Parts: sequence; structure tokens; C-alpha cells
Amino acid sequence: MSPERLYLFDTTLRDGQQTHGVQFSTEEKIRIAGVLDSLGIDYIEGGWPGANPTDSAFFAARPETSATFTAFGMTKRAGRSAENDEVLAGVLDARTPAVCLVGKAHDFHVTEALGITLEENRENIAASFTHIVAQGREALYDAEHFFDGWKADPDYALSCLRAAHEAGARWIVLCDTNGGTLPEEIGRIVREVIAAGIPGTHLGIHCHDDTGNAVAGSLAAVDAGVRQVQGTLNGLGERCGNANLTTLIPTLMLKEPYASRYRTGVTAEALAGLTRASRLLDDILNRVPLRSAPYVGASAFTHKAGLHASAILKNPATYEHVRPDSTGNARQIPMSNQAGQSNLRRRLAEAGIEVAPGDPALGRILEVVKAREAEGYTYDAAQASFELMARAELGRLPAFFEVTRYRVTAERRRDRRDRMVSLSEAVVVVRIGAETHLSVSESTDLEGADHGPVNALSKALMKDLGVYQGYIEEMKLVDFKVRITNGGTEAVTRVVIDTEDRAGNRWSTVGVSPNIVDASFEALLDAITWKLVRDGAPVAGRAAAPVAAPA
Amino acid sequence: MSPERLYLFDTTLRDGQQTHGVQFSTEEKIRIAGVLDSLGIDYIEGGWPGANPTDSAFFAARPETSATFTAFGMTKRAGRSAENDEVLAGVLDARTPAVCLVGKAHDFHVTEALGITLEENRENIAASFTHIVAQGREALYDAEHFFDGWKADPDYALSCLRAAHEAGARWIVLCDTNGGTLPEEIGRIVREVIAAGIPGTHLGIHCHDDTGNAVAGSLAAVDAGVRQVQGTLNGLGERCGNANLTTLIPTLMLKEPYASRYRTGVTAEALAGLTRASRLLDDILNRVPLRSAPYVGASAFTHKAGLHASAILKNPATYEHVRPDSTGNARQIPMSNQAGQSNLRRRLAEAGIEVAPGDPALGRILEVVKAREAEGYTYDAAQASFELMARAELGRLPAFFEVTRYRVTAERRRDRRDRMVSLSEAVVVVRIGAETHLSVSESTDLEGADHGPVNALSKALMKDLGVYQGYIEEMKLVDFKVRITNGGTEAVTRVVIDTEDRAGNRWSTVGVSPNIVDASFEALLDAITWKLVRDGAPVAGRAAAPVAAPA
Repeated sequence: MSPERLYLFDTTLRDGQQTHGVQFSTEEKIRIAGVLDSLGIDYIEGGWPGANPTDSAFFAARPETSATFTAFGMTKRAGRSAENDEVLAGVLDARTPAVCLVGKAHDFHVTEALGITLEENRENIAASFTHIVAQGREALYDAEHFFDGWKADPDYALSCLRAAHEAGARWIVLCDTNGGTLPEEIGRIVREVIAAGIPGTHLGIHCHDDTGNAVAGSLAAVDAGVRQVQGTLNGLGERCGNANLTTLIPTLMLKEPYASRYRTGVTAEALAGLTRASRLLDDILNRVPLRSAPYVGASAFTHKAGLHASAILKNPATYEHVRPDSTGNARQIPMSNQAGQSNLRRRLAEAGIEVAPGDPALGRILEVVKAREAEGYTYDAAQASFELMARAELGRLPAFFEVTRYRVTAERRRDRRDRMVSLSEAVVVVRIGAETHLSVSESTDLEGADHGPVNALSKALMKDLGVYQGYIEEMKLVDFKVRITNGGTEAVTRVVIDTEDRAGNRWSTVGVSPNIVDASFEALLDAITWKLVRDGAPVAGRAAAPVAAPA
Repeated sequence: MSPERLYLFDTTLRDGQQTHGVQFSTEEKIRIAGVLDSLGIDYIEGGWPGANPTDSAFFAARPETSATFTAFGMTKRAGRSAENDEVLAGVLDARTPAVCLVGKAHDFHVTEALGITLEENRENIAASFTHIVAQGREALYDAEHFFDGWKADPDYALSCLRAAHEAGARWIVLCDTNGGTLPEEIGRIVREVIAAGIPGTHLGIHCHDDTGNAVAGSLAAVDAGVRQVQGTLNGLGERCGNANLTTLIPTLMLKEPYASRYRTGVTAEALAGLTRASRLLDDILNRVPLRSAPYVGASAFTHKAGLHASAILKNPATYEHVRPDSTGNARQIPMSNQAGQSNLRRRLAEAGIEVAPGDPALGRILEVVKAREAEGYTYDAAQASFELMARAELGRLPAFFEVTRYRVTAERRRDRRDRMVSLSEAVVVVRIGAETHLSVSESTDLEGADHGPVNALSKALMKDLGVYQGYIEEMKLVDFKVRITNGGTEAVTRVVIDTEDRAGNRWSTVGVSPNIVDASFEALLDAITWKLVRDGAPVAGRAAAPVAAPA
């Protein structure tokens, strides 16, 4: 029996935006859509065009995707035709191939929240779907509060589903909007809906995690026959979040009975990018990744108990239900120097740094990683700084230049027209070989706006690096992330900088200090040094030194 | 039909200690045991006495509890009698009323990890339980890897359970040690075990969250007949954690069919202390509480979507599956660009700012929120700045003081001993009434370490605020969060500052600027101004102005 197709619908950009504290920019939405598309998600719901200015901007700028781009909206309001509902028109104006409209399926909400008759609501559903299907769009009906509605009045709830189905909606999505329905109940109700005549191949499930059962509820619905699963990356979403696709996808692909029974649009290769996708979203949101997240969390394959760790070394299947690399994750055995060294050699070799087994530098590097990470460094997010640190321990880091001092000033005062203005300025003194270079820069852009002390420092540092200038001119700082790793203004600041060259290669460096300017400076220096190492820049005042030779 | 008793077994102090980065002190264990006992947990597993010095110290110092104190250990080793096994003796020496011993129930693990025969392992189980029952202890058998063992060889797995049951173990706990068994499978296997003759009233369930289904798996086991549920507070535990009792307890008590079918040792009153218990544990572990945690997370009853928020105001049941106060939590309707005028008035009223319906300022405030959030502000996370902005629009913000200029310098250079050192310094000029105050501060602490320009600025600003000094002296900056909301060093920086007064009241303010020093400065100013508003500070150079009067 060939596996049945199961469709994945992602709503990170719509329901995920209801997460407390989350407000995506258009650019961030474009990046996340790219991540979802390369995973192989079938549908990407991008937001509610017309209702929200940033959502409209995103739809205008939306990227080309293999995934079916979906606009969200609501069924037309009572007392006007679908054609004359300007909210619905705003949704259709986004010109997406698919449109998902939410509409009530619970009598209590129709009369209590909308204040219209049950018949009017059903009419709104029918007319809205007739309209969008006539426009040639693939139509999805989010049956809001469906499970609570079914429990209150199954006939009415079912009549709403039928109205959408008969009007040509491709998918009828059963929403547990308040997140209170338990998995066993979801499974039972889905079976009843299918028995009442809506085919499972046209049904979707949309769960929330208010009882910690969003994943289980989604699986129960699949078991009962639905063939579309809705959720978000990292389980973002209002209140306790939506069903977590980052958990559901590996379960559907790796665990029985799902692995044999179904296939999704996600390939095994794309699945191996899941951990990276999850971290990228946290990175965009500047959130600390949840260590305990199933499949993708840093602790998901960390074996701390002594008995477990030693059994794992004999045979990983003793304490792992799936292979860590299937989702791009890795096993971690804290305090196991032996396991640590072989991983380390592999990681260095991947960066082109070959080290003989048993080289005493390996132990030293592990010690430095441990000590630095305790101070707040993160080498996971800053591979370039990791490589430079390892090269330094191995005696393979050329001394290209030295910054002997810098000074940064940020000032705020009234200008001639009595307006408050800011101005930042930096002076940097660099020694290159026998020469000393003094550079000064301010942070003001062409419009006269100030961009602050870190910007001024970066401009001054990159203004004159003598013989190295040709190597760094093409460098562009593309991201700058700051995290305070302890409470209070006196806490330690971690700065991670992403830099790109003209060819689009990107590298990440880290700096840590109680002083944010110092931390930024350290990360900037690493970014430049890594570029010089990579390009094999000759050390000033010497004959060209091959990169791999001790400095 | 009177409800059946369901027993709760907590292993926060034992399995929870396997969490990456968690190592409880004896004193912390005593505090947590107190929390568990006042919740009404039936069994508290305290650790492995004899195997771990801090565990032994804890058992020696363990508090009096209504809960049954349980020591953890493993079944005796092969080749010696239970009486002569010193590891087992160490466990019994803790003199707890109950003892839980782990023993393999999976043939693969017996031969692969232990390297003994299947018969030897079963003999170890039988002899161990005969011994501890003879000592008058309540005995629990943790059947390790039971579900994987049952799938591999059900006869052998069952024979292990029978060995413990026949030797007098009160509870046979079915452990899904690797966390890979899905709920549907757990339910089916539990039913088969009960059909094979082990009564459900003697069965427990122990799930891990490796597929995000630990809660659902536990519920499936209860549905199938087990009457003891094991888990941890906040789902602590190795890898992805154990079943989360903080989620399971409210589900069992508030949700059907559990609420009617079962009763636990937790009263409705104790349940209302659950949110506090959860936060206390995070506090002890110095972890940021998970906002999205079911029932107890700060976002669990937060309604951000505009449509939801307005329905909630009509009737909370529209978007809440249980009452927030049932677990000691509270409803929140954050200010964000998705909310409307009715939310706004309510939000202002909660902050003590009464505004008449239809006041044109309401529309202006919503416009400002929208414009500012597009610039990068986040009022969700900064209620105090939101209040100040609203007061300004309403003409109810006194002009306490003005910072006419400041200058911050961060420098890095060699000291006399040729070491690189950092130094930051700030000058702030403040006009208060007719007076001008000039303050200077550096950021060096008692050990000579530099804490950067933001720290220097904050110290200078709070050094001399003239007549307001008494109001701000008790202020303490407790958290400082930085986020870059666009790529590149020229991006906008958002700073959120949390401030606390001596009584522990906390307020959050936000500042946004391309210049991190400016953004921090704005958030600092708001933090001070909010304190002055709250305390009704009189405006300098005037008669005391009531807070609510236009400035």
C-alpha cells in the first residue's frame, strides 16, 4: 500500500504573530517564508492583507515559493454581499493562489460575539466561499471553535462545514480555537464528522497548546482521518501557542505508524535542516532557544545521567528513540572528554583545520570552550570566532595587526535650531607592522541621522587598515545581535555579528564584555581577522605566510 | 459513582535533577519539597541516597511531609543477595516510608547494557522487592524501558512486572524511558498489561517528552487504567524533560472526563497556588519562566488578537477553556497594534487612568501605538512606557525635569602596566525648575572593572536629580534587554529596562533609536518618570500638582 499524502500548513506568519511580544517586520517575514519553503511546507499563511499595514507590505513583496502562498481573512459580514465586503476584497487583492477564511462554527459565538442569526452566519460562509472559488482561488475554511461548537450543537457546527464544503472549499479546517479539547475527544469528533459525510481528504486540524496536547491532538486527528495539519515553527502562537510543526514533522516522518502510512512534502534531506530552521527563527526573534524542545533542542539528545551516558557509548539506541542527525541535531554527553575530542576534531576538519588525534591542543581547546561559554560566549552561533580561538590554541593564527587604543563618544545636545540631536564619533589607533594608523569617523548618515557609537567604531576601524584594506573593503555587516546574559545594566553583554563578502558568503563572530562597545569591538575584530585568514592575507612586514603555518 | 483516587508521584528532585544545568543544593531541595507537599502531591521522590552526596545530605535533613517520602535506587546487582548489596543498603538507610527501585524490563538492555542473563535480571527484581517489603517499606518498581521492552518481547517484559508484583511491590510503574512511545501505543499496551493480570490500581505511568507527548501519553495511560501518574514540576528532566505535572494536575482536576471520574490529593485551593509554585521553581533555578506554559505561563491567558480581545470583554468563555484564577494565573490583554479602543480604555483604567468613552485622545493614542510599534517600540513588553505615552497624549504628564545634554565616552587603551583596559564615563546636564544640575560618573566597579557607557550614563543620571532624589534612590535596574530590529550596525536598537523598587514592584520601559546609548537613555528616563508619576512627586518650582491634572 503506497503511503497517503499528508499536507502541512504553516501559520507562523499569521497565528504565530499573535505570540506575546512578536511583531515581524516585512523583511523578517520574507526570511521565514524562505525557511518554510526550503523545508517543504505545502502552505504558507502570510498574514491578513488589508487588516494590518505590515501584512499588506509583506504580500506586496512576497517571495516566489514552491509552497502555496495563502492569505488569511474572515468570511463576509452580514448585511452585504461578498462582492461588496471591503475586508474580503482586501484579502483577495493580495492575489495569493490560496485564501483561508475564518468563520464561526459555534452557535454561542455567532449569537454572543457576532450578534447575528445562525442562518446569517451560515449564509456568510456559503457566499464567501462561492465568491473566492469563483475568483479561481484555492479556498480553505478555518471553522473557528469547531470542537466546542460540535459539543454544543453538532447539527449547526456540521451545517457550517457543509456550507463551505458545498461552496467549493478545498479544505475544511477543524479549529480547536481555545485549545481546551483533549486528544481523545478530537479523535472521536473527527471520526463523527467523516461519518457525517465530509471526507477526511478535505479535512484539516488546527490545535492550540492550552493543555499541552496540541501535538497529540493533531496526531489523533490524523489517526481519525484528516489529511492537513496546521501549526507553527517552534509552536509560536497566541496564549500557549499552536501545534508545534518542529515537533510534528519529525514524528510524522520518523515514527511509526506515521512514517509508513503517510508522506509529506518534506524530504529526509530537508528534515536534516530542521534544527537550523528552528534556531534561525529564535535568532530572528532574539529568543533563547528552548533547550528541551523535542528533536531540535540543545538538550534533546543530551545524556547527563552517568548510567545513560555509558550505555549510549556502547549503543546509541539504548537511550535514543531516533537518530539526532535525522533532524540536524547532535548528541551531547557533558563531561565526556573522550567523546568531546573526537567531535572537536571533526568540527575543526570541517573548517579546514586538520589536527592529529591526541594532539594536546585538543584538550586545551575544549577547556577554553567550556570556560568561555561559562563567561557568556556562544560558539554554536559564531563558528568564525570558534575557528580563530582554535587556531590561536594551535599556534596557527597570524598576528595581522593590533588595535592599540580606541575612544568612542556619544553625545546628545541641542543644535542651533534648539532641536535635540545625537552625534557619535570614534577614534581608532592601529599598528600594522611598523606603521601606526590613526582613523576617526562619525556615525552620521547622508540625512544627518546618528547611528550610534558601535557604528562609528566600525567605520573608523575599517577606514584604514593599510595593506589589508583591499581584503576588508568588500565586507558588509549584515546583522548585529545583542543579548544580555544576566540581569541589570552591569550584566554581561554578548554581541554576535554576521558579516558577508561580495559573493554572499556569511560568517559569524562573537564578543562578550560588560561593556557593549567592547563586546562589539571584539566581534568586529574577529570578523576582520577571519576574513584575512580565509583569504590567506600575508602578514604585514613579512613575506607571505601560508595560512596553515604557525604564526 | 464516586470518583476514583488517582495518585500523583513527583520526581522533580530525582529525574528533574537530570536536566541540563540543574544541580539542586540540599536547601533548595527542602524548599521544593515544601512546595510539593503544600500542593498535595502524594509521593515525593527525593533522590538516590548513597549514590550522590547531596542526595544523602538531603535525606538526612528531609522535612516532615504529608506526602510519602520516597528514596530512589536500583534493583540489586547479580551475584550477590539483596541483603548484601551495599548500593541497595544505602537506599534503605535513608529510612523513607517508600522506596522506588529501577530495574530493566527490556531484554536488549539486560543483555546489552547490563551484560547479564534475562533470568538473572528477573531474579534481581524479585529478590530486591522481597527484601524491601520485608523491611516494611512501601515498594515501587520503575520498569525501565518497559514500552520498548514490551514491543521487543512482551512475555519477558511482563514477567519482570510479575516478579515485582508477586514480591509485594505496591506500584508497578511503566516507564517510557526514551520518550519515544506515542500516546495511542501507550494506551494500547497498558490495556494489554491489565488484561494480562496486573491490576490498574497497582500501575503507574512515567513518560518523557521526546515527541512532545508526555502529557498526552500520561492521560492515555490513565484512560487505559493506571492509577498513578509520575512527573515533574515545569516538566524538568533529562533531554526533553518528564511529563509536566504543572500541566497534568489542572487537566486532571478541571477538564472532563477527568474532573468527574477521578480525585487527587490536590484541593481546589492548592490548585490556585500552582502558578506561584511554578514560578518559585524557576526562581530557584534562576530560569526565565516559560511564557507559553499551559495554565501557569504569563501568556496562557493573554489575548493579543483584536477580535479575540473584544470578545473576551463580552464573555471570557469565548476564548478561555478554563478560568485563569483556577490555577492562580491572570488574564492579560496587551496593548499592541492589533487592539482597539475598548481594550485601550480598559487597559488605561487598570493603570488608574480613567478616560471617557469617545474621548478623541483614545484615537490619537492608538495611532501613536501603531506608529511607534512600526518604528520598533514594543508596548506589550513595556507597560510603564505605554502609560507615560498615553498620559502625554491626554495632557496628564507632569514635566518633572529635562535633560538638556549628555555625553558618554568609552575608551580602550593600555594602562601603566601595558594591559588593555576599558573606561567609560558620562556627563549629564539636567534642568529641574530653575536649577541646572551637572553630574559626571564613570562605570568602574570596586574591582576596577568597566561596565560600559550605558552603566555610566545611568549612574550619572541618577546621581543628582535634586528634589526628586528621594524618589529614585530606591530604584534598582533589574533587567536590561537589547534587541536589534533590523540587520546591520545601522539598524534600530530597542532597549527594554525592568526596574524594581524596594517593595519588589517592577515596571518595564522601552527606548528605540539607531544609537544604543540613546535608546537606553530613553528607557532610563521613562523608568524614572514613571516612578515620579506613580509616587505623585510634586513638580519642582510649583505647588504640588495632583498626578491626574494636566501639566
